[in-house]
Amino acid sequence: MKILFVNEKIDYDGTQLAPQWIYNNFGILGDAGVAFMGEARVPIENMVDLADVKENAFIYSPLMLHFIVEHFDASLELAVYRQRMLIVCIKEELESFGIKVLRLGDDLYVDKGKLSVSIATASLVSTLIHVGVNIETRGTPVKTSGLSELGIADISSFAFNVLKRYERELEGIYEARCKVRGKYA
Amino acid sequence: MKILFVNEKIDYDGTQLAPQWIYNNFGILGDAGVAFMGEARVPIENMVDLADVKENAFIYSPLMLHFIVEHFDASLELAVYRQRMLIVCIKEELESFGIKVLRLGDDLYVDKGKLSVSIATASLVSTLIHVGVNIETRGTPVKTSGLSELGIADISSFAFNVLKRYERELEGIYEARCKVRGKYA
Amino acid sequence: MKILFVNEKIDYDGTQLAPQWIYNNFGILGDAGVAFMGEARVPIENMVDLADVKENAFIYSPLMLHFIVEHFDASLELAVYRQRMLIVCIKEELESFGIKVLRLGDDLYVDKGKLSVSIATASLVSTLIHVGVNIETRGTPVKTSGLSELGIADISSFAFNVLKRYERELEGIYEARCKVRGKYA
Amino acid sequence: MKILFVNEKIDYDGTQLAPQWIYNNFGILGDAGVAFMGEARVPIENMVDLADVKENAFIYSPLMLHFIVEHFDASLELAVYRQRMLIVCIKEELESFGIKVLRLGDDLYVDKGKLSVSIATASLVSTLIHVGVNIETRGTPVKTSGLSELGIADISSFAFNVLKRYERELEGIYEARCKVRGKYA
Amino acid sequence: MKILFVNEKIDYDGTQLAPQWIYNNFGILGDAGVAFMGEARVPIENMVDLADVKENAFIYSPLMLHFIVEHFDASLELAVYRQRMLIVCIKEELESFGIKVLRLGDDLYVDKGKLSVSIATASLVSTLIHVGVNIETRGTPVKTSGLSELGIADISSFAFNVLKRYERELEGIYEARCKVRGKYA
Amino acid sequence: MKILFVNEKIDYDGTQLAPQWIYNNFGILGDAGVAFMGEARVPIENMVDLADVKENAFIYSPLMLHFIVEHFDASLELAVYRQRMLIVCIKEELESFGIKVLRLGDDLYVDKGKLSVSIATASLVSTLIHVGVNIETRGTPVKTSGLSELGIADISSFAFNVLKRYERELEGIYEARCKVRGKYA
Repeated sequence: MKILFVNEKIDYDGTQLAPQWIYNNFGILGDAGVAFMGEARVPIENMVDLADVKENAFIYSPLMLHFIVEHFDASLELAVYRQRMLIVCIKEELESFGIKVLRLGDDLYVDKGKLSVSIATASLVSTLIHVGVNIETRGTPVKTSGLSELGIADISSFAFNVLKRYERELEGIYEARCKVRGKYA
Repeated sequence: MKILFVNEKIDYDGTQLAPQWIYNNFGILGDAGVAFMGEARVPIENMVDLADVKENAFIYSPLMLHFIVEHFDASLELAVYRQRMLIVCIKEELESFGIKVLRLGDDLYVDKGKLSVSIATASLVSTLIHVGVNIETRGTPVKTSGLSELGIADISSFAFNVLKRYERELEGIYEARCKVRGKYA
Repeated sequence: MKILFVNEKIDYDGTQLAPQWIYNNFGILGDAGVAFMGEARVPIENMVDLADVKENAFIYSPLMLHFIVEHFDASLELAVYRQRMLIVCIKEELESFGIKVLRLGDDLYVDKGKLSVSIATASLVSTLIHVGVNIETRGTPVKTSGLSELGIADISSFAFNVLKRYERELEGIYEARCKVRGKYA
Repeated sequence: MKILFVNEKIDYDGTQLAPQWIYNNFGILGDAGVAFMGEARVPIENMVDLADVKENAFIYSPLMLHFIVEHFDASLELAVYRQRMLIVCIKEELESFGIKVLRLGDDLYVDKGKLSVSIATASLVSTLIHVGVNIETRGTPVKTSGLSELGIADISSFAFNVLKRYERELEGIYEARCKVRGKYA
Repeated sequence: MKILFVNEKIDYDGTQLAPQWIYNNFGILGDAGVAFMGEARVPIENMVDLADVKENAFIYSPLMLHFIVEHFDASLELAVYRQRMLIVCIKEELESFGIKVLRLGDDLYVDKGKLSVSIATASLVSTLIHVGVNIETRGTPVKTSGLSELGIADISSFAFNVLKRYERELEGIYEARCKVRGKYA
Repeated sequence: MKILFVNEKIDYDGTQLAPQWIYNNFGILGDAGVAFMGEARVPIENMVDLADVKENAFIYSPLMLHFIVEHFDASLELAVYRQRMLIVCIKEELESFGIKVLRLGDDLYVDKGKLSVSIATASLVSTLIHVGVNIETRGTPVKTSGLSELGIADISSFAFNVLKRYERELEGIYEARCKVRGKYA
């Protein structure tokens, strides 16, 4: 897969979670992960989490670090496993700064403040993951925590390290799959 | 899936990593995870990690907490993702005790001592995961750490909590897969 | 899977055969089967059976017992097999009342009257099955038979028993898959 | 798929349930179903049903009608669904003779006598189904019924009709899969 | 699969690359390949090749031999392999006329003139392939070659032979898959 | 995938067509293709083509260029498609020398002499392809042609170019899969 930190502000409204959005906007073809900063304001009609739609729980954050990941296979189940690994990569990058993080499924919490939102879904040609990590937290609809108050100043380095961890994780998973003998009995 | 802590000492020599070993020994049919304590001594001919076979790196530990997990689908790739989630569950259970753990792929380290061994493989009818977590560390071939010295006294509770975390993780992944709207554009 | 008989009249017009219709309306997340009673009047534009669309064969019945089943995997082929098993469950439940039923693919006939309509299809996140079983038959476009004239008075019990049979059938299939040794030669 | 009634006595001992046994013995390449008559005597070491192995429940019948079906895909789950459809085909062929049959999973009963044994399994290149239907019942280890006492005299016609039903069933399933519009919303 | 040469002029504008277009127009149900002659004029909004969309590279040819192939499985990856085999079949049919053809991926060239356009994509129920082979080349946006100038006079025979080659190729692939022993070690 | 020409003579007896033979011998982990020169002498018990086993058609050639390709996925059907593409790559590399080659399925012929043998099969963890291309032809059991008499002197360059073509082909197939819009209607 290819990874990229986009050095331009992009506000996230849910339309970025679309097949080949990465290719159409950044020319990267194939499995890829990109990160960028921007507001998050997802209207209900763009939300794909039906539990949130039911509860009318729209998403808002004044400034988030966004990750969009696309994998060109058809398994939504696998996509959710990958989403979990991406969340774990973010948690472990934060731990490298000495920050204690609690993970509950695909949510991250620091000091009981919700740090992230995330979803994984499928299109006809690919699977898609979005993770948004709060940088600033003013005006968020629930109690949140953000990277700024946690002392993560260099967001682009942080973002790149997370993408790098995720890339290595998937390489490691592939290698683990390739170096094992099957059980013939 | 069903989970079980087996309250009897079972020495692990690699033959436990076999299709329906859980069913044949404990009568649990279908996706399952079991845990038990015992020595680990895997001779080269029973090892399924070909990288270890190449390096003649046999496995030994005087006392380990063992997890055997079997899922009845055919995807070895998915099995490796599940193995990673099980490793993450062990790490996060240790974190609930205030223990700092470093994860590198499917290995766990505490204070630079290797805490665990792990493998995922496939049979004709299922996929299989083994994780062994050192309890005692005397005589291990590399620098290790163990649950005893980390102050985890109640191994059976610890094991059960890990299995419970893993079970909930997989339920959460299934629910995430079911509550999402596809991207139709 | 979860099963539910909905004790409220719902007229079926084809829009109920939609991903997460069950979750959005009854809060049941994941693989599920629900049954309810209501008219069936499917306009051509809502029909998914292209053979019927070609022949302009719209569906009408004054009162039907409807089954909607959703499975969260991606195999349309498997969905058709499951549809057949659901049809077989209905046939066998009728047989327990001493009623002789002829099955031709996914159609059921009693005394040469068509008892049912059925379809299986796929969405981006799930597969979907609809079976409609005539209760009343006045005004149907072809010669039909219905549960009323067959003496099935307690429709909700009948519906629940069918769903229960189907649930057990799928559990039995899963167990059969898990208890078998592969052929290693 | 191709179907064949083999007009020669073949005793079934479990070794016939093997990949490409049909091709190696009858020259039929690809998905196929064959039927033949013969004793059934499966020693424990040839049994693939681990529940039977556990209970030491060997299989014996003095004369059975055997079906061996092989499909060249890799899904054991699908194989079990197909096995169920084959069982249903046998039940429905018997019903065309006016015989009432009870199906419990993959078992058929007439007058509380067990009529059949069956298993589905997977090899590395295919999935395999065996169904044995008692013709004679002397000496069987449980209460059984048999085709002879049910008045089915022409076993080869019966066998061929079952295979024909099964072949049409699978064609119908394929056509159902092909004629349906997906749900794009 | 079923194959058909349609003896009527059909102009290709991209809307023919749709699920069950073959069934809806020619009544052929299931895996199928059809060929017909007609202009090619695909407006940008109908194009599915996003690289072409990016470059605004619309498709035009005054007269082409078109192939539409539909397979009712869900693997887009497999569809691209099949597309390549269809391209190879066209190349090899041309070679049987003594014409030297260069293949680059899914493009065919004769004397540095581009002979063909092609795409493979997926719908919810099937995968779809289009290949257009120039017959006439006046007005094409790039340097092209065409069947007329290559001396292929009988287009319908040529088309039928290509479809026949493709059909035999897929049969051969199926047979190769069925006649091989797995590697059990 | 990784590719390698092995500059050492290795006689092929069928045991090289084994999971992770490439990894165990050359340390290349994951999808890979290697080529080497050596005699071909495959005894019946090592043959995996059951049609050849039936006809007792053992394989012998005094000197062949061998290709072993391993892909770590589970689809035998896909493996046969890849095998065909590898055969096409060999054909097209020969065409770049001006040599006319006839392909019949997975066999290549020059001047009615059989140039190659090939098979694709599956193990529990991967799929495997072997292609042997005659260099010398003395003593072969059927009429053959060989690279020497065709004027291909630099076998290692030829081998490397074929592997390179194959590698690019698979990259192109992946890119084609990733750049296409699905059909949402």
